Amino acid sequence: MKSAQPTLAQLAGLLGAELRLAPGASEAQVPSGLNTLQDADVGEVSFLASANYRRFLKNTRACAVLVTSESAEDCPVSALIVSNPYHAFARATAIYQTAPQYAPGIAPSADVHPDAEVHESVHIGPGVVIEADVKVAEDAVIGANSFVGAGSEIGARSRLFPSVTVYHGCYIGADCTVHSNTVIGADGFGFAPHDNKWIKIHQLGGVEIADEVEIGACSCIDRGALGNTVIGRGVKIDNMVQIAHNVQVGDYSAMAACSAVAGSATIGKHCTIAGGVGIVGHVSVADFSHVTARTLVTKSIEESGSYSSGTPFSDSRSWRRNAVRFGQLDQMSRKLRELERKLEHKLHTKGSGSDDI
Amino acid sequence: MKSAQPTLAQLAGLLGAELRLAPGASEAQVPSGLNTLQDADVGEVSFLASANYRRFLKNTRACAVLVTSESAEDCPVSALIVSNPYHAFARATAIYQTAPQYAPGIAPSADVHPDAEVHESVHIGPGVVIEADVKVAEDAVIGANSFVGAGSEIGARSRLFPSVTVYHGCYIGADCTVHSNTVIGADGFGFAPHDNKWIKIHQLGGVEIADEVEIGACSCIDRGALGNTVIGRGVKIDNMVQIAHNVQVGDYSAMAACSAVAGSATIGKHCTIAGGVGIVGHVSVADFSHVTARTLVTKSIEESGSYSSGTPFSDSRSWRRNAVRFGQLDQMSRKLRELERKLEHKLHTKGSGSDDI
Amino acid sequence: MKSAQPTLAQLAGLLGAELRLAPGASEAQVPSGLNTLQDADVGEVSFLASANYRRFLKNTRACAVLVTSESAEDCPVSALIVSNPYHAFARATAIYQTAPQYAPGIAPSADVHPDAEVHESVHIGPGVVIEADVKVAEDAVIGANSFVGAGSEIGARSRLFPSVTVYHGCYIGADCTVHSNTVIGADGFGFAPHDNKWIKIHQLGGVEIADEVEIGACSCIDRGALGNTVIGRGVKIDNMVQIAHNVQVGDYSAMAACSAVAGSATIGKHCTIAGGVGIVGHVSVADFSHVTARTLVTKSIEESGSYSSGTPFSDSRSWRRNAVRFGQLDQMSRKLRELERKLEHKLHTKGSGSDDI
Repeated sequence: MKSAQPTLAQLAGLLGAELRLAPGASEAQVPSGLNTLQDADVGEVSFLASANYRRFLKNTRACAVLVTSESAEDCPVSALIVSNPYHAFARATAIYQTAPQYAPGIAPSADVHPDAEVHESVHIGPGVVIEADVKVAEDAVIGANSFVGAGSEIGARSRLFPSVTVYHGCYIGADCTVHSNTVIGADGFGFAPHDNKWIKIHQLGGVEIADEVEIGACSCIDRGALGNTVIGRGVKIDNMVQIAHNVQVGDYSAMAACSAVAGSATIGKHCTIAGGVGIVGHVSVADFSHVTARTLVTKSIEESGSYSSGTPFSDSRSWRRNAVRFGQLDQMSRKLRELERKLEHKLHTKGSGSDDI
Repeated sequence: MKSAQPTLAQLAGLLGAELRLAPGASEAQVPSGLNTLQDADVGEVSFLASANYRRFLKNTRACAVLVTSESAEDCPVSALIVSNPYHAFARATAIYQTAPQYAPGIAPSADVHPDAEVHESVHIGPGVVIEADVKVAEDAVIGANSFVGAGSEIGARSRLFPSVTVYHGCYIGADCTVHSNTVIGADGFGFAPHDNKWIKIHQLGGVEIADEVEIGACSCIDRGALGNTVIGRGVKIDNMVQIAHNVQVGDYSAMAACSAVAGSATIGKHCTIAGGVGIVGHVSVADFSHVTARTLVTKSIEESGSYSSGTPFSDSRSWRRNAVRFGQLDQMSRKLRELERKLEHKLHTKGSGSDDI
Repeated sequence: MKSAQPTLAQLAGLLGAELRLAPGASEAQVPSGLNTLQDADVGEVSFLASANYRRFLKNTRACAVLVTSESAEDCPVSALIVSNPYHAFARATAIYQTAPQYAPGIAPSADVHPDAEVHESVHIGPGVVIEADVKVAEDAVIGANSFVGAGSEIGARSRLFPSVTVYHGCYIGADCTVHSNTVIGADGFGFAPHDNKWIKIHQLGGVEIADEVEIGACSCIDRGALGNTVIGRGVKIDNMVQIAHNVQVGDYSAMAACSAVAGSATIGKHCTIAGGVGIVGHVSVADFSHVTARTLVTKSIEESGSYSSGTPFSDSRSWRRNAVRFGQLDQMSRKLRELERKLEHKLHTKGSGSDDI
């Protein structure tokens, strides 16, 4: 399933690197893969992307290392000189990636509706279900046992890993990746209270996912109540992320695992939302904001910056002592003001000794 | 797949509304759908459910608006007069819903055990697996690639969206909805510690879900260890909600996304559990309680009310300064009391000047 | 699907218990199952594992009870005397478990690649997809609609429940259990920032799961970026647990539902991680550590112990009053010190009355 791997010289060409061969090395060598400086086996390529790892350079067994020109002289093996070794490493991972590639064709056990438009270059895996009026564009890959509901669209070169569910009326752009067991387009959580019961608000909108979006495993992006839930271009979403109805996520923002956004919230462009963050409904988060792990955002963030909530962790015994005081904070604050007042009074009465209570 | 949509006059009838036609409007017009006041296109019906949106009424392009009789006079287009526009809107969403409807029948690729009792009106999608002794009642819909384990039951008119997993020995009532990739009846997390290892406690109970329950996508409702996990009538559960073994959720309670309830906890009736809430094991929550987003409930809630935990969010710099003080709270509290004591002593010794340390 | 259930005498033998028959009881009786003391029906076996439940012993309807020799004399029915009734109960659950057992064989609708090595004793359910070069060892059970990607391995007697996804190049040991909709080997969340966009870091490692591991439903264990994500022997993982790339979880640790571990973190052996805990990336947690519910671990835990974070919950009104003070904590602390300083000065100036501001 893999194309032939490149020689060192070819790799240099692919990464725009200058190849400085170590004595006795050959540009015709075919590296076997990528690895860290400390773990690389003979034959693997490595990279030096941070000063923290420089100490591993001297003894690396890698056959070549992606380095800056400044670090090249310390490289004991062949150097692949680039301006930004981390970016070059990221691009190199695409060359050495191991995910199986699939040939065009529809598996016999797939169930593709005759009214679906599936480009002939598309791969449809076993057990896949494609409903009526679905469009799947060129070179898309729909993994085994995935489902694409009526009228939905999957853009060119997009890949659904196995068991992805896309409900009806959802749009996924080009060059997207969706990992397994993620659900796109399930109903938003909408119920009107009535006589202590709930009336279902059927969710009439859809989901619109722009190009170059990646979504991890077991995540949910709900369809809009009225109008669409929208994920911008180049957004990266990790595993177990919950995006409620009518949320909008701006271009190139990233959301780490277990973060959750409630209904109709708007996240700006280029935001980084760390793991476990919660964002309540109807608020907005300014472009280029960063929210740290596990923060609960309870009102709009108007200005770009870094935002946090929560308490530090400690041994449980100390924590318990402090946590119980949290429940007395308002009282403590009042006592403090009272003391200030008393002391101030005392000082101003210049030691007169009168009891000021 | 859709039945013909109603005329304005028919819609009024269906919603129990009084239709007051705008000049030149026709009760025979067939609205194309529902939308908000500000987004409605010509031909769509809208609603005014909150004073916050009144300013959009004047310029709406909707062909008709659900309003109260008080607001009807301000309505520039045809008015559908009802006592509660939000409820009428909720009911209208059922009329305009877009979810595909499925005809009775069993897909050829489905695997239905000969000992299963599947009513002839049921739809079984492609790739579905129905094990022995399962019962599926009339008009139920089992979405593609779903699984219903041995001896389980699915009630009348209930719908499983694609890729739902129902383990063996679970009971789902009538008129329920379960969204994709939700798992009902997986083992509760039960292990007895023994010699620093774990002995599995096989989970011998099941799951019992009453009528009119809706469960979102990627949620888990574990089977009981001994006896059943029980979800009451009309309960609404959002995405990624975790219900552990032997939990009981009372009738008509609602749980928002990413909330989690640990083993043997009991949630009362008519509770609203906001997003990300955690409830520890073996506690109970009183009927009509409300728990705010991300709260961790660590002991029983005896009285109906609203409950919260957590800290406010702020810019990370301010937060860090305050969070570090959280770890000094007990010390601060002690200092405060010491100061009170000293000042009190000072005041009572009437400025005698003696050092009271 | 079930083998014949044991008589009381056989049960005693299986559990290493001494059977002390109540008057009129027969060792040939076949108990119908297990239950709690209070819920047991006539014919069921129960257990007394905690002093809290002793009050239920007297009136239990169980036909026999697992008890210690000390409690045996208070047992009104037949006693199964063991040294540790809870362990005996846990072992007994294996005898009475209800999960369907499956015969060897490959379902006709399964799609097994001809280059896969599937032992003849293995059960492959309907709709399962097994890619090239997969190995499935003896007596393994692969549940309906599960997927095992190219080159992955499933150990002997391991069981995947329906709709489990195992990506390519992942290794699952012997005697493991993986519950439905769990995803093993999806890409870790790795992207290099570049010009305000993201370059994908393809995840070249795999996942390595040792023997006797159990993983709940809807959990994710991501593949490593370089090198493997590793789950140690006998680890127990609950539902909706997120394990990021290159995490290592030590032998016999347990992680409750909704806990999450970020990239390259290392959890020691025999740790217990409670529900909803978060562990940030690149930290390590010492062996035998316990982390309480919902704690966020933000730096390494060097010593075994119990660790916590968070605030107590209360009624929302009190909480709000206290929470707002959290944002003033640093200021309060400064004021407190100022007061201490002033009072100290005041005391040392022995009531001189000078204003010390």
